[in-house]
Amino acid sequence: MLTLALESSAKAASAAVFEDERMLAFAIQNAGLTHSRTLLPMAEGLMRQLDRPLSALDRVAVSRGPGSFTGLRIGLAEAKGLCWALDIPAVGVSTLEAMAWGGPVLDGQMLCCCMDARRDQVYNALFTVEGGKPVRLTPDRAISVPELENELVARQEPWILLGDGAELCYNAMDRSLVTLFTAPEPLRVQNARGVGLAAMGKDAVPAGELLPVYLRLSQAERERLARMEKESIT
Amino acid sequence: MLTLALESSAKAASAAVFEDERMLAFAIQNAGLTHSRTLLPMAEGLMRQLDRPLSALDRVAVSRGPGSFTGLRIGLAEAKGLCWALDIPAVGVSTLEAMAWGGPVLDGQMLCCCMDARRDQVYNALFTVEGGKPVRLTPDRAISVPELENELVARQEPWILLGDGAELCYNAMDRSLVTLFTAPEPLRVQNARGVGLAAMGKDAVPAGELLPVYLRLSQAERERLARMEKESIT
Repeated sequence: MLTLALESSAKAASAAVFEDERMLAFAIQNAGLTHSRTLLPMAEGLMRQLDRPLSALDRVAVSRGPGSFTGLRIGLAEAKGLCWALDIPAVGVSTLEAMAWGGPVLDGQMLCCCMDARRDQVYNALFTVEGGKPVRLTPDRAISVPELENELVARQEPWILLGDGAELCYNAMDRSLVTLFTAPEPLRVQNARGVGLAAMGKDAVPAGELLPVYLRLSQAERERLARMEKESIT
Repeated sequence: MLTLALESSAKAASAAVFEDERMLAFAIQNAGLTHSRTLLPMAEGLMRQLDRPLSALDRVAVSRGPGSFTGLRIGLAEAKGLCWALDIPAVGVSTLEAMAWGGPVLDGQMLCCCMDARRDQVYNALFTVEGGKPVRLTPDRAISVPELENELVARQEPWILLGDGAELCYNAMDRSLVTLFTAPEPLRVQNARGVGLAAMGKDAVPAGELLPVYLRLSQAERERLARMEKESIT
């Protein structure tokens, strides 16, 4: 089974091609160019390097969030377009779970996956590693850094921080109470390798059913709600 | 400073572009296609994705061995060709050191980098991680698996096995005497990300001076020597 994995939930964009569980090719671009310009040419380049036509793909895996609203929409839209054109299904995976799969997955390690969600929050999920695979300890959620710190301290384990919120957490938390490591940069950030691995064993669905998971309302929605509340009060 | 890093010392081929210490783009291909066909198009694709001409490169970093004799020659020849055409210098780095930089680099971890060298040997070097950087504990060498096992046991540490010799060592060693982990596949294998990181802080030289480091004689050389010895005896 040939899977194309796409990741564009944050600043970097990446694509990977898997034959079952084996990654045949992978590319990542982290120079700040817009995903709408880089993601598909990257995927096309991988397939060309592998000497395989796009029509050889059996499914597309894509990170569905949480993450940058624009980034997620670009990734999901491109996945849906490809799936529609090729008549193949898609798998949406949690950005935070993909981050865990793309990290330094060694048995017994505790992984704290976090993205900066602004407004004093992080998107977060905790994982441990068993048999070389991340095992989920919490659902994906948006929580405050002090709340997260309390949880990490309570579990009495050294934690590996992953994600673009890793540095934020490392600096904000009291490291006399909890042992923290930040993973080296290229492993730290969510990538299509993690998306492809996280998608293994998950059922594909018709691509039209894929929805982004933002965990929070967008700024436009928040402002609209606030405006409506204000109007209903006055 | 813009660095192109190339890795082709084993089955996979990969290329990366660094702006100083920051990796802007990376691609790897592990489908068994020949390096002489995939490596340069991959590098060219990265530069195109980044919207940078080849002439923007300041230097080329390449893994100079140990490793597959053919793979190393392809990587070095392509690095030299590029450097000659662009009139820029090159940095040759140890394949095993690049492997350490490309692995799960968390402080305090002990890294055992090994490639299957056939004839009951592995190419090996040991590293520890300090301040997020691999620190060398041994030179690169070709040693037998039992010799390596004795060293690992003597150091009383859990070891992370990296490289295409990781599984060989994991299976051959007595794990009641030494704690071994194999890193997850995509981190385990040497790659251009590790080459680029290992090249940081190293001086570039005129590309013509780069030489492969095989650590052992090639099969052709061994057979010639054996023939000459035989002839001198008879």
